[in-house]
Amino acid sequence: MSVVDGRPVGEADREARLLLSRVAEPGDVELGKLVAELGAGGAVGQLRAGSLRHRGVLNLRARLDAASPQRDLAAGRGVGARFVIPGDGEWPAQLGDLVRLGRADAGVPLGLWLRGPLDLREACRRSVAVVGARASSAYGEYVASELGLGLAERGWTVVSGGAYGIDGAAHRGALAVDGPTVAVLACGVDVAYPRGHTALIERMAQTGLVVSEWPPGCAPMRYRFLVRNRVIAALTAGTVVVEAAVRSGALSTANRARELDRHVMAVPGPVTSAMSAGTNQLLRQPDVMCVTGVGDVLDLVGAIGADLAPAPAIPADPRDALDDMSRRVLESVPARRAAGPASIAVTSGVAPHQVLRALGGLAARGFVERVDSGWRLTR
Amino acid sequence: MSVVDGRPVGEADREARLLLSRVAEPGDVELGKLVAELGAGGAVGQLRAGSLRHRGVLNLRARLDAASPQRDLAAGRGVGARFVIPGDGEWPAQLGDLVRLGRADAGVPLGLWLRGPLDLREACRRSVAVVGARASSAYGEYVASELGLGLAERGWTVVSGGAYGIDGAAHRGALAVDGPTVAVLACGVDVAYPRGHTALIERMAQTGLVVSEWPPGCAPMRYRFLVRNRVIAALTAGTVVVEAAVRSGALSTANRARELDRHVMAVPGPVTSAMSAGTNQLLRQPDVMCVTGVGDVLDLVGAIGADLAPAPAIPADPRDALDDMSRRVLESVPARRAAGPASIAVTSGVAPHQVLRALGGLAARGFVERVDSGWRLTR
Repeated sequence: MSVVDGRPVGEADREARLLLSRVAEPGDVELGKLVAELGAGGAVGQLRAGSLRHRGVLNLRARLDAASPQRDLAAGRGVGARFVIPGDGEWPAQLGDLVRLGRADAGVPLGLWLRGPLDLREACRRSVAVVGARASSAYGEYVASELGLGLAERGWTVVSGGAYGIDGAAHRGALAVDGPTVAVLACGVDVAYPRGHTALIERMAQTGLVVSEWPPGCAPMRYRFLVRNRVIAALTAGTVVVEAAVRSGALSTANRARELDRHVMAVPGPVTSAMSAGTNQLLRQPDVMCVTGVGDVLDLVGAIGADLAPAPAIPADPRDALDDMSRRVLESVPARRAAGPASIAVTSGVAPHQVLRALGGLAARGFVERVDSGWRLTR
Repeated sequence: MSVVDGRPVGEADREARLLLSRVAEPGDVELGKLVAELGAGGAVGQLRAGSLRHRGVLNLRARLDAASPQRDLAAGRGVGARFVIPGDGEWPAQLGDLVRLGRADAGVPLGLWLRGPLDLREACRRSVAVVGARASSAYGEYVASELGLGLAERGWTVVSGGAYGIDGAAHRGALAVDGPTVAVLACGVDVAYPRGHTALIERMAQTGLVVSEWPPGCAPMRYRFLVRNRVIAALTAGTVVVEAAVRSGALSTANRARELDRHVMAVPGPVTSAMSAGTNQLLRQPDVMCVTGVGDVLDLVGAIGADLAPAPAIPADPRDALDDMSRRVLESVPARRAAGPASIAVTSGVAPHQVLRALGGLAARGFVERVDSGWRLTR
């Protein structure tokens, strides 16, 4: 490994990316291009020289003066977090697809903070995003939890945003079977947000992964959720929206998934539920697949042969085994009174001698019985 | 009008079709071809001569001996029914599309028995089929009834099968606003089936239309429902399946609609409801549209300009009116304590002088307020 300024090049790159993460907002495509061109260290140099002072509405200078990569690293170490960058073995190559998006704030992450024992790349090799409304209904939480559990049971990783409602239910479903689950946060990996999910996020940090582009200590802000969503979409083979109002951040995850050529799936719900209004609207789009359970999801994202969904159970009807003629005769046998073969022949339109043969077969199968006045249905 | 055997040709054709309706089962494509070739009278001649004795499993001879067009006409008159045939002004031309189906039992009807004041052709010019499970849920009945009502209010005719559950709810929805509704039965127009719908069917016969291919007195049989469904699909611009189990006759109506290039629509429902399993499965097919209300239906089948659906209501958020910079500054103002502009500048990444300007604007709009220790959100 080559050495610059007394440190390995890889580590200098990591530290420069760390600094840029603190100073700029993640996803800045122009900054990403500069990093690709000059290296992260080169971009930091331009920043210090003042030529990168403004990035859109951001004033990077103000943040640069307050930034300290050493302090961020120490804070990360304090919660057992690591900072991984492109080129690391754990870096998921599929994040590179984000260059396709062509949105100013949806570039490839400069790096990711990770807390937890899983290997991010390995965990996301077979992964599905399960996302949705925070103000979910009991129906949505049930479905999200069943999806999380079912995916985890089949060896798929459940990726979500750690939020109240659908996200939490999906994570909990996976955890219920000790399955792999990854929370991608819109704040530092050391920030328990929402507060009510402190224990849930801690449990994922112990057994799964908690992921963020933002340095330790960063607070969640509304625009950060939207920026974060692209990472959830990019890490996974597809995104399932379980419940969403017509105006819901989960729909932005679905949009990013579509733009990244990932599968977009939605769970149908009652048209009378505001929490299904967004998902039912998604289902009106031609490239969104209606999914009713883990089988449908794996039908779409799974490997052929390995993750086949069973066909939906169709209740058997003993009449299905009958030939067309016997069925017509059976339909013409009255339920309450008995009828003679001649009358059954006219009603059914089947010839009398064939009616007699059919009645014999139907009696043998227990559908009809002979009584003094003719034939009738068995009770 | 020319005269044969002392009767006008049209009336002889009508009587021959009446006889064929009684003797064969509706939809018989081969018989339909014979009628197209020889005329209905010619087909009756072949039947009497014995050369058409068997049609599939049917023995036409047995029924011919028992048939009496005069008795059928008298029975029809008894309930105020008329028998219309192709060429009549009231005959809906779109039934001719049934020749496309290429199914042995799904041909163009030989004629239709009608009870009710509406003109069938005119009533079906703007019509939608609303069909579904007999064993429907309260959810399905609510949605069907709202659809029936909404379509009728906008001048669309609601066509269904008169059955319990979804069919009945759709008819009743239309009747609730004195709207046009048409029941296509799988039995004679004088047979109240199901019995519990005697009053409903009677009301449609008084204000709408009750339609059947079967002569008066014919009983509903299972295979007749499937044959009947093609007429519901063919009469209408599209079929909405509101609720259906995975094995449901309503799905056959949807299939016929698809084969006839009509719109196929399904109402989404909870994945936990067996009564929505069939509709949710339909929604997995690429040519089935998810509809959540009458607006979605008219979006698909309505005339552009005349039947526009309003866009779904999206709750307004006062923050939407803010520019990007003000939004970022607002997100960085703490909720509980106050913060100074310098701290807000670092958190938001916006330059200090711009922070001050943005805070002024936000205060004027009532989002933030200045206190001794800095700025905070208004309560």
